[in-house]
Amino acid sequence: MCKVKRITSPANPVIKRVNRLKRKKDREREGCYLIEGFNLTTEALKTDSKLEIVLLREPLFDDGNEDVKKLIDQLKKNEVDIYIVSKNVFEKVSDTMTPQGILSVVKKKIWNCDNFFINNSNLIVLDRLQDPGNLGTILRTADAAGYHGAIILKGTVDVYSMKVVRAAAGSIFRLPLLFVDTAKEAINLLKENGKLILATTPYCRQYYFERNLTNNIALVIGNEGSGISDEFLRFSDAMVKIPMNNEVESLNAAVASAIIIYESVRQNYLKDGGTI
Amino acid sequence: MCKVKRITSPANPVIKRVNRLKRKKDREREGCYLIEGFNLTTEALKTDSKLEIVLLREPLFDDGNEDVKKLIDQLKKNEVDIYIVSKNVFEKVSDTMTPQGILSVVKKKIWNCDNFFINNSNLIVLDRLQDPGNLGTILRTADAAGYHGAIILKGTVDVYSMKVVRAAAGSIFRLPLLFVDTAKEAINLLKENGKLILATTPYCRQYYFERNLTNNIALVIGNEGSGISDEFLRFSDAMVKIPMNNEVESLNAAVASAIIIYESVRQNYLKDGGTI
Repeated sequence: MCKVKRITSPANPVIKRVNRLKRKKDREREGCYLIEGFNLTTEALKTDSKLEIVLLREPLFDDGNEDVKKLIDQLKKNEVDIYIVSKNVFEKVSDTMTPQGILSVVKKKIWNCDNFFINNSNLIVLDRLQDPGNLGTILRTADAAGYHGAIILKGTVDVYSMKVVRAAAGSIFRLPLLFVDTAKEAINLLKENGKLILATTPYCRQYYFERNLTNNIALVIGNEGSGISDEFLRFSDAMVKIPMNNEVESLNAAVASAIIIYESVRQNYLKDGGTI
Repeated sequence: MCKVKRITSPANPVIKRVNRLKRKKDREREGCYLIEGFNLTTEALKTDSKLEIVLLREPLFDDGNEDVKKLIDQLKKNEVDIYIVSKNVFEKVSDTMTPQGILSVVKKKIWNCDNFFINNSNLIVLDRLQDPGNLGTILRTADAAGYHGAIILKGTVDVYSMKVVRAAAGSIFRLPLLFVDTAKEAINLLKENGKLILATTPYCRQYYFERNLTNNIALVIGNEGSGISDEFLRFSDAMVKIPMNNEVESLNAAVASAIIIYESVRQNYLKDGGTI
């Protein structure tokens, strides 16, 4: 059975733990992360992501809202521990300007090379992206496009930070993630699993829509400032560029990714004779 | 000749004016806006956007950096007034966490119906977007794609706010902008000027890549929460959707816009027989 407890002190161990989980180091040690807001907790419940505990701000828990009641019933059914937290204490843990009054601790899902790679699926590779909004948006776009996962290189901003999770809008619960230390390791894994490494760079001849992107593509997305690392450029199977008005220097990283990711969706639609 | 003056007091009228220009009301009254950072000021100088004054933080002005020297020469040539500002005062006007030490006041450019509409060009229509990052990113994408302008509806976040300008990365100096009060007014202007109103909504049959988007398209981009207003949906010439994995509710607004904007770039490339 799940517990329903009240918390009124910021010194409560549960509150202390939640605050700790705002740090990457502690998220890594505990294998958990935080999500905030009604939508994200509802989304998490639809997936196999495991909610550990849920904090609800008073008086939200008791105010009779139908959606909240349904959510609480679902949490009880799933045996998730619920903590009713006083307004003052909740404001201390919340990461948002206008908190909705719900914050949950979610267990990270783990993928490894054996269950991450799937035949014919497309993937993205995140090569040291720094902006949490961009990273979350890219995960959301890849998920929407039916890509099967993201390989995340060391040096990329933590995907489990609250900002990334918010921008990913639920995709963090669905998209398989594989963490690797070096470009070399990623390249070896991709080649072993029959993926074609596609690098985006202005220094090439071919436009992204001139290539077959229907399957087995690993689209490498580079750092916002310095782009894709030399290693990926050297070992890529293909390089493509996005046409741009001469005066524009570059596109936002999430936008550039989306343009290429959705070109593969379009090509697959045509290949399948118009069924989607 | 341009002036070069030193400012050491936050009570200096120039500093007071710069701080005022952080408010939309004052930007509207004075017809000016602020840009921060070396790149944006350099970009502005490449266009016909008029820089009114430039603030430079000490000791940047005197430190002998070649790029800074070039910039200052250019500013003097263009007869832009330069103010050398003490470090403490600069930190009070800066909008960024790690200021580069350069902030400029730029005169807004004005377009009207007579010089905004161009035959065959594509446009975007911004229907009450709220997120500054999204808005700036969409302007940047439209500019990169060779779209000719943006119609901005009342209720949209101010395009001249520092956050929007930063995300637009120089496109604010190039992309023509037309401000209108109501959807009705925008619709009338678009129809008079031979533009086809394209609305994106999940509640339609056709995918965006199934339509001709090569020219005379006015792509309407709706509010992040509530979408496109009823008026635009009712008077649109076409409605299109973006395919999505069943579990994903929506895409980020800047991403959704980019996907459709670049489909028109792709179609134009094919139409022109591969020249771009």
